[in-house]
Amino acid sequence: MASRGGVLHRPNKESLIATSRIHQRSFGSTTINIQRNPSFSMINSDDINYFRDILDDNTVIQDEDRLSSANIDWMRKYKGSSKLLLLPKDTDEVSKILRYCNSRRLAVVPQGGNTGLVGGSVPVYDEVIVNVGLMNKIISLDKVSGILKCEAGCILQNLDSFLANECYLMPIDLGAKGSCQIGGNVSTNAGGLHFVRYGSLHGNVLGLEVVLADGTVLDMLGSLRKDNTGYDLKHLFIGSEGTLGIITKVSILTPARLSSTNLAFLACEDYSSCQELLLKAKRGLGEVLSAFEFLDTNSMDLVLDKLEGVRNPFPSSLHKFYVLIETTGTDDSYDRAKLETFLVNSMEGGLISDGVIAQDINQASSFWRIREGITEALMKAGAVYKYDLSLPVEKLYDIVVEMQLRLGSSAKVCGYGHLGDGNLHLNISTPNYDDNVFAQIEPFVYEWTAEHRGSISAEHGLGLMKADKIHYSKSTETVRLMASIKKLVDPNGIMNPYKVLPQSIYSP
Amino acid sequence: MASRGGVLHRPNKESLIATSRIHQRSFGSTTINIQRNPSFSMINSDDINYFRDILDDNTVIQDEDRLSSANIDWMRKYKGSSKLLLLPKDTDEVSKILRYCNSRRLAVVPQGGNTGLVGGSVPVYDEVIVNVGLMNKIISLDKVSGILKCEAGCILQNLDSFLANECYLMPIDLGAKGSCQIGGNVSTNAGGLHFVRYGSLHGNVLGLEVVLADGTVLDMLGSLRKDNTGYDLKHLFIGSEGTLGIITKVSILTPARLSSTNLAFLACEDYSSCQELLLKAKRGLGEVLSAFEFLDTNSMDLVLDKLEGVRNPFPSSLHKFYVLIETTGTDDSYDRAKLETFLVNSMEGGLISDGVIAQDINQASSFWRIREGITEALMKAGAVYKYDLSLPVEKLYDIVVEMQLRLGSSAKVCGYGHLGDGNLHLNISTPNYDDNVFAQIEPFVYEWTAEHRGSISAEHGLGLMKADKIHYSKSTETVRLMASIKKLVDPNGIMNPYKVLPQSIYSP
Repeated sequence: MASRGGVLHRPNKESLIATSRIHQRSFGSTTINIQRNPSFSMINSDDINYFRDILDDNTVIQDEDRLSSANIDWMRKYKGSSKLLLLPKDTDEVSKILRYCNSRRLAVVPQGGNTGLVGGSVPVYDEVIVNVGLMNKIISLDKVSGILKCEAGCILQNLDSFLANECYLMPIDLGAKGSCQIGGNVSTNAGGLHFVRYGSLHGNVLGLEVVLADGTVLDMLGSLRKDNTGYDLKHLFIGSEGTLGIITKVSILTPARLSSTNLAFLACEDYSSCQELLLKAKRGLGEVLSAFEFLDTNSMDLVLDKLEGVRNPFPSSLHKFYVLIETTGTDDSYDRAKLETFLVNSMEGGLISDGVIAQDINQASSFWRIREGITEALMKAGAVYKYDLSLPVEKLYDIVVEMQLRLGSSAKVCGYGHLGDGNLHLNISTPNYDDNVFAQIEPFVYEWTAEHRGSISAEHGLGLMKADKIHYSKSTETVRLMASIKKLVDPNGIMNPYKVLPQSIYSP
Repeated sequence: MASRGGVLHRPNKESLIATSRIHQRSFGSTTINIQRNPSFSMINSDDINYFRDILDDNTVIQDEDRLSSANIDWMRKYKGSSKLLLLPKDTDEVSKILRYCNSRRLAVVPQGGNTGLVGGSVPVYDEVIVNVGLMNKIISLDKVSGILKCEAGCILQNLDSFLANECYLMPIDLGAKGSCQIGGNVSTNAGGLHFVRYGSLHGNVLGLEVVLADGTVLDMLGSLRKDNTGYDLKHLFIGSEGTLGIITKVSILTPARLSSTNLAFLACEDYSSCQELLLKAKRGLGEVLSAFEFLDTNSMDLVLDKLEGVRNPFPSSLHKFYVLIETTGTDDSYDRAKLETFLVNSMEGGLISDGVIAQDINQASSFWRIREGITEALMKAGAVYKYDLSLPVEKLYDIVVEMQLRLGSSAKVCGYGHLGDGNLHLNISTPNYDDNVFAQIEPFVYEWTAEHRGSISAEHGLGLMKADKIHYSKSTETVRLMASIKKLVDPNGIMNPYKVLPQSIYSP
């Protein structure tokens, strides 16, 4: 199993208590009432013996300490009670495990780096945890086309380091890169910081090997940019959060690693300027634009307050909004001049009130630290209610304003995220967990998002947290077809139960 | 119904006869024996009356001339015998048509611009033709994010012209753009000339509205860059060639239309130089590279011989390979200088033996005319056996060499295509159709491709032509799951029968 590395922050005790209470609330809410599915068997000593037979001894884990950390997510918000953690070393072992579990009706939760934010990668009850972290081999890299094949348990940052030597890079980049695994990234259709440049995993993943609930190995591990022979079934597994099978191998297109990266940190005084800046960046920086992120003044305030060593690039005052624009190209002096011209024009046009370009990699890291440190700062601040919304860009910040008005001084509402992709991370911070605040937030936040044809999960997935909320973003007919496909592929429902789809669809 | 415009070439009589004989062969081959599915009803006067009731009079077509052109594909290679062409004007009409056809077990072939190359868009027997060409409205364009929503019958070129006014462009571009429709493009997962820059429709299509066989309207018409709420079912319909439903609306991400385009036409003396040039272009031109196409000496020879007004940019001699490199960026003088430097370096490094940059749009068009004219030149040359293969780039040209050796002087083997995507168009030209030549080509070409883990259809789809060849590129388990999904979504099998999946999977 992968270590959590230094990238992800462990919350302090105070916030643990707060988030743990939120968790109980999600379980006990009025709209969802998750009972253990009685059709699942309980694990017994024969089962353990079987797994000891087919797997190496040290990969059948019943040790309480190790189980304890596999049972809980990294935010310590969701906690299961699995009695068994399995660490298969190859596809054949995964296949044997699932075939057996299916025949015995033992429920299974697939696990990678366990860095998800919606409770998708930990058990709800006593599901068997199948962690693919030992399957971490790089299989091949086609040096002409940049197509990488690897096992699902490879850690994202390790893959990127490997590619760096070959002048390629991973098309996704996210805060959890030191811990998250590519199989989990694909299963959750991770987005991240470079989505605006390299696009979705649906565009970049070229092939998958997947083991289905009954142990069938689906070899869809093509390593071709184009393949129009029949239905492209790999897409079913991208973003299905382990509910349709376990991804064991991935083939992915990796872009050329270009030599020049520049980063600007800008201040805007209103949201419409941020929007116009985005439009101008898409046109004026066009081919070199590789990230367009934003944060609001509350987010900046929190980061400056809670994180040590973080400095405001514009120390004289707080601005209403901040934008990070990154460019990546092949010619440093030209790219830099281009960004400088863009800044000067934006300043003269009144779109930005201040702006600075990072002078070296250390300054660039310090700018990124502000954006990437928001999650950590929020967790240090107390209880946090996290929402990951996709909205039409022009409406994107309205929900932050409305929410702040709604909650008044009882909470601090922070809006930040991937503006270039229309993806808002809406985070509401309170000193302690508060029933009244929660009742003001939900279901309002979901209703508002649905009303504006947004998505209640842009990139985090539904997991356990939002399985019963799917109707806010998907039509009844679409959810019905999802359920039929789930039933077709996993008739006993053993794969990652209670997640993604609402329990009600399983009822007779 | 869309006119065919001036882009697609109608073959001359000689090639018609030749290709028609190939078509009979595909029908009568030993591996496939397509019989009309006896479970389908024959259309009767009650059916016609029903359609006249629910549709406008002039959209229920029985006129022989109009039926005749809807029954045959543009290459005049595949010909059906439908007695009825319907032209619904909106989603509701499509839904009523399908619901009725499903209840009556009337088979249906969805049709758009009818520009496909594998017989996917015309009937095999008496299927009802449902052409969505009247559904050609642009619904909306989000000017900040570049997200376009439109009906399925919009012609690709019209969409691109509309977007040009808003500084956006369609992320796909292909020879048939004056006739093909966006619904058909999505149904066949069209690739085209700018794939190397903008990637696959699986990455660019953000939402679809689809009508299923039973008339259910699946509203998946999101217009968000990110949406991780459940299984992303739209991907099932991208590239399924109308066998799972009819696409009625499309939401697509369109990139910013950048102001500067430059085009170079280069000569290489061996294939390994072409490969190395690709690698250098990806790294050196990186962010501005927007096309990397190649053709071999046989292709060039044929174009110069058969097409009027086409000139060799290097008139002194024929080279072994030619490469077109297009760049698209925001700064014309810089982009041009960048391309010039790239050319000089490539020349000095011995990768190219000659090279020229288009001086104006007319010269650029004349260069593109060489690459885009190959299909037309081939059809003028006599019989042509067309294959659209995806292969690892390093192996891509080996099949051309092997095929020429295999066929000797009896045929002219041409290799060209989208080198940047590993997509080879292998075309074999003979003066007349020849059984012996055909027996030398198939199944060898499919076996060779499978052996090298290629795809027997990179971008054209399987259609009727290759439905029984799917096993060369997909595993048994994968095809079985495709068949289960087909059965789930279209239990009576009325949607575009005989296409994509082999008939054998429907047998009891």
